[in-house]
Amino acid sequence: MDGVTDLPRAGAAEEGARPAAVVTGTLYGVGMGPGNPDYLTVRAVRVLERAHHLVHFCKAGRRGNARTIADAVVQDPAREWALAYPYTTELPPDDATYVSALARFYDEAAARMADELGAGRDVAILSEGDPFFYGSFMHLWRRLKDRFPVEVVPGVTGMSGCWTRAGTPITWGDDVLTVLPATLPAAVLARRLAETDAAVIMKLGRHLPKVRAALAEAGLLGRAVYVERGTMAGERIALLADKPDDQAPYFSMVLVPGEGRRP
Amino acid sequence: MDGVTDLPRAGAAEEGARPAAVVTGTLYGVGMGPGNPDYLTVRAVRVLERAHHLVHFCKAGRRGNARTIADAVVQDPAREWALAYPYTTELPPDDATYVSALARFYDEAAARMADELGAGRDVAILSEGDPFFYGSFMHLWRRLKDRFPVEVVPGVTGMSGCWTRAGTPITWGDDVLTVLPATLPAAVLARRLAETDAAVIMKLGRHLPKVRAALAEAGLLGRAVYVERGTMAGERIALLADKPDDQAPYFSMVLVPGEGRRP
Repeated sequence: MDGVTDLPRAGAAEEGARPAAVVTGTLYGVGMGPGNPDYLTVRAVRVLERAHHLVHFCKAGRRGNARTIADAVVQDPAREWALAYPYTTELPPDDATYVSALARFYDEAAARMADELGAGRDVAILSEGDPFFYGSFMHLWRRLKDRFPVEVVPGVTGMSGCWTRAGTPITWGDDVLTVLPATLPAAVLARRLAETDAAVIMKLGRHLPKVRAALAEAGLLGRAVYVERGTMAGERIALLADKPDDQAPYFSMVLVPGEGRRP
Repeated sequence: MDGVTDLPRAGAAEEGARPAAVVTGTLYGVGMGPGNPDYLTVRAVRVLERAHHLVHFCKAGRRGNARTIADAVVQDPAREWALAYPYTTELPPDDATYVSALARFYDEAAARMADELGAGRDVAILSEGDPFFYGSFMHLWRRLKDRFPVEVVPGVTGMSGCWTRAGTPITWGDDVLTVLPATLPAAVLARRLAETDAAVIMKLGRHLPKVRAALAEAGLLGRAVYVERGTMAGERIALLADKPDDQAPYFSMVLVPGEGRRP
């Protein structure tokens, strides 16, 4: 394999860390887009076709969504490398046991990847959406970036996929867009929502009732659109006001479209 | 041409507006990504290869950037359709003459597209980045969407391309991201910057000195990264503090990377 190195790489420092006489592999962060494999980039497809290892994050015993997207391009169990998170439900991010278990998980995975990269094999980490936008990839990247060549392939974000499928522009003219994790306290959410023109609220899960209340307080409930599994099988799109229950899976978000200038 | 209609379309209402006996063309909004054609999606390439008309916005007498990106996929002057903006420099968005000239420009372009769509020909509007994220496409879309079938192809945003090339994740953990047009008043910029975890400031142009001052006031100048023509020829990346001048072209932005949780 001659590698997939025709694009220039970001970060000259990373290149500088590569010893001249040793051919190491490249660490790829591959943006897998919002879910529909037609929204993979040309570059992502090329890396998926050629990298030695295709790494995806998953819950124990389940296939990760990024890996499912890749099925359209490559089906090769020998190259597949599953990284199962140490917990199956998300614990509070300030829980010390949770944080140290996650750190150990990333440390161990990075060490195994360093072995492969050091032996000249390319490792591609499949990242839902865009790798540098709320991605688990970044936790491995920061452990490996100073020792190996890196190429990040940007992807269509999940939020772009969702507003596309909802059929609504998100920002017009000089609209300000705020991207908010639903994990924020209710009062913070309401204040942020009240002062922005457009918003995307991610990581809904069990926080949906709180998000609904914050939207109502900010006077935005009527404009809020709920999108579940946007661009994927099982897609569901509704005005949030028309969604009767307060269950939201991981792949869901709320959009508040902007209403800026429209000449 | 059998059309490129294998993906389901958003918006059942649009389908309902299509008379049963007449085969109209489809209006495509094609996200062209951040600039490097390797970051086109598989779906975008397919639409570019097959649509009857490839529309791009430009300044009079110049090729639009979206059209330049498409050169990697298609070079067919007979399908090329340039839409030259009525002004070559941007006037204040509340200038009545400017607004009415823009409205007339979009009205006339939409009318010409309606003729083509009504005659069964597909019209693809090439949109830098993502069509529903600050795109001129939206102004034609809202004039045509109730009369013709529409498919929007999401794209990698310019900002994703820029943070990828700068080699910096933009959001970690529960970071809030705020996307700000540089056209906002200085005090508003400074306040918004002071209360967000991460920021992207778009549409720099002549506003760069104001943006620099707002970042300094918010204590963020040291973290701000300037990216010009990200992923394209002529790319330039620097800490904003290290960029000596205050000239910024249209294809430039400032990133303030988040510093959230890193287990």
